[in-house]
Amino acid sequence: MEEKVDINWMEEMSFEANVDNFKIVLDASEDVGGRGLGPRPKPLTLASLGGCTGMDVVSMLKKMRVKLDSFDISVIGELTEEHPKYYHKIKIIYIFKGKDLPLEKLEKAVDLSQERYCGVSKLLRNGAEISHEIRIEE
Amino acid sequence: MEEKVDINWMEEMSFEANVDNFKIVLDASEDVGGRGLGPRPKPLTLASLGGCTGMDVVSMLKKMRVKLDSFDISVIGELTEEHPKYYHKIKIIYIFKGKDLPLEKLEKAVDLSQERYCGVSKLLRNGAEISHEIRIEE
Repeated sequence: MEEKVDINWMEEMSFEANVDNFKIVLDASEDVGGRGLGPRPKPLTLASLGGCTGMDVVSMLKKMRVKLDSFDISVIGELTEEHPKYYHKIKIIYIFKGKDLPLEKLEKAVDLSQERYCGVSKLLRNGAEISHEIRIEE
Repeated sequence: MEEKVDINWMEEMSFEANVDNFKIVLDASEDVGGRGLGPRPKPLTLASLGGCTGMDVVSMLKKMRVKLDSFDISVIGELTEEHPKYYHKIKIIYIFKGKDLPLEKLEKAVDLSQERYCGVSKLLRNGAEISHEIRIEE
């Protein structure tokens, strides 16, 4: 199956992307000639990864009847120093809040996402070293 | 250098991502339990790639004094059939409009982006076969 995203140049460094019929303005930061009208393209990859694995995890925890008060994900990409600068290391921090959360189930959901379900992880893992960490907060 | 994106679970399959201080709601489609409140995470990777190479190209063409009437990019990802479904082939179509556009310069800008500058291409290229095509429309 094919999926398609259209991106139209607006002006200077800004583009409007049409993703699933939602418009997202992308722009460069001011120090490289942009005007900061929207997120930069590169960290959007990190959002793509975090959203993908996050959806896997909430979906599996729901099936396991684990109730979360909140669930946050931080995705941290370390850029290479040489051009082309890309994320050669990516760390995903899963932060779960809730009462008496079962660590084992959280780990299982995260591992299944990383190893079996998340297609963005699968794609990026060939170019970047991806690691993760689970934090539980009451 | 490190870059960080925070993603917060909203409800069901929806998440709010904070990318460069811009909020993007991500959601799954209705057929997999989402409500389609925002783009799905996976095609966001394609937008990230298109935006990254698009900015390289406009920036280089500006230096080469090439004047474009419009510039659109389509990024098409072909998903694997087996899980985890990921884009194993990605095609980038660069569509330039303008009067008497110099193909050689357009090709040079695109090639430099793909081979030397675009960090998203560099990252994805290890997991996916990336190809591209240049179209000129008057």
